[in-house]
Amino acid sequence: MNIVIVEDVDFVGERRVVLGGRRAAHIVNVLKAQVGDRLRVGRLNGDFGFGVISEIANLRVELEVDLDRSPPPPLPVSLLLALPRPKVLKRVLAAAVTMGVKEIFIFNSWRVEKSYWQSPWLGPERLREVSLLALEQACDTRLPEIFLKPRFRPFVEDEVPIMARDRDAWLLHPQTGSGFPEISSSAPSLIAVGPEGGFIPFELEMLTAAGFAMVSFGPRTLRVEQAVPAILGRFL
Amino acid sequence: MNIVIVEDVDFVGERRVVLGGRRAAHIVNVLKAQVGDRLRVGRLNGDFGFGVISEIANLRVELEVDLDRSPPPPLPVSLLLALPRPKVLKRVLAAAVTMGVKEIFIFNSWRVEKSYWQSPWLGPERLREVSLLALEQACDTRLPEIFLKPRFRPFVEDEVPIMARDRDAWLLHPQTGSGFPEISSSAPSLIAVGPEGGFIPFELEMLTAAGFAMVSFGPRTLRVEQAVPAILGRFL
Repeated sequence: MNIVIVEDVDFVGERRVVLGGRRAAHIVNVLKAQVGDRLRVGRLNGDFGFGVISEIANLRVELEVDLDRSPPPPLPVSLLLALPRPKVLKRVLAAAVTMGVKEIFIFNSWRVEKSYWQSPWLGPERLREVSLLALEQACDTRLPEIFLKPRFRPFVEDEVPIMARDRDAWLLHPQTGSGFPEISSSAPSLIAVGPEGGFIPFELEMLTAAGFAMVSFGPRTLRVEQAVPAILGRFL
Repeated sequence: MNIVIVEDVDFVGERRVVLGGRRAAHIVNVLKAQVGDRLRVGRLNGDFGFGVISEIANLRVELEVDLDRSPPPPLPVSLLLALPRPKVLKRVLAAAVTMGVKEIFIFNSWRVEKSYWQSPWLGPERLREVSLLALEQACDTRLPEIFLKPRFRPFVEDEVPIMARDRDAWLLHPQTGSGFPEISSSAPSLIAVGPEGGFIPFELEMLTAAGFAMVSFGPRTLRVEQAVPAILGRFL
């Protein structure tokens, strides 16, 4: 937890917040903070700054906050991710949000196991929890928007071409031969990452028809949880 | 398993190998391969190519192999990694090896918990196992060399300056202000990554004295398992 994220409901005064539960326990037990200590604090989807602990009692922490700085700018990347297995999904989402992605589409593809769509990790509360922890790691305050697209074809035929119209669109596919192009880190981009095993030829055709250019990371085949930070690192 | 890695001991003829155990089980149960099927095969630390299954019996798989292609070139990066907790170590090693790193130094630093050095994951057999699985993922055959450096000072004072003499040396440190420089993907480089919580000022001084330039990935603080693929991605 590199920043304490507070929400509207935590405010008991204009600049005073009271925290309980996980955040209070972390401040007391992990950070071992005491009254008078200064912590980095951010308001969910708002500004960040600092808070000074004014009281600690019964796993309840009161802070006087001063939030006057804008959060870091979003990464100019929208991520289109074929749904991976739940354990990998958590890690990939955490990486994407920590690195500043604010728009994530989780979509279906031929090699995605149908059962993955039943995972409790796709529930809005779980996605929010993973995102919040990633913001706390990143020192960021803005939650990403996460969209579930369980049907490949209408998503790629109807929605993606509109999204790709005014953005660079890169489709990561192992060993396509072409190296990775120089990326201008400020250009708004779409990045599509396939499932383990990759997209099938029909999907590759539809994605390229929708505006994606295929790129590869060279001769080695990366796992999804390695490929996503590797490509996002090009935008940092 | 994107490539079946065979070792000298598996050869029963000049081009004939017999596999048992994990690899045979994977070929039979996961790949569901049958006699006559062609699989990508590589010889540990040697060439790769293909193998045709000539026999499957009692979880024992015999292949006729034809290995005449060189493995992909190593990434020109040596990774210096402050020992993370074991779960993270496994993931970071897997990422580094999958991405082609062939020289990894795991070293001590102030914020590394002493108990981590007792982890069974630092044993040579476990490190080899993690590396082998990563090579199978990457379609690579060359094992990395992994060196343990449990004493920070002699490593950074005596060994690192020699290593840094003819290489670019980048030290990843959150929020140092400077953005990330353009990296020439062919320049031999050292990359140092600190523990969760970062290096302490004394360590930063010693590392910069040893030849490292501090760089940051921007305003957000990444986890080690995100920072390593992100920086290695610059070399792909």
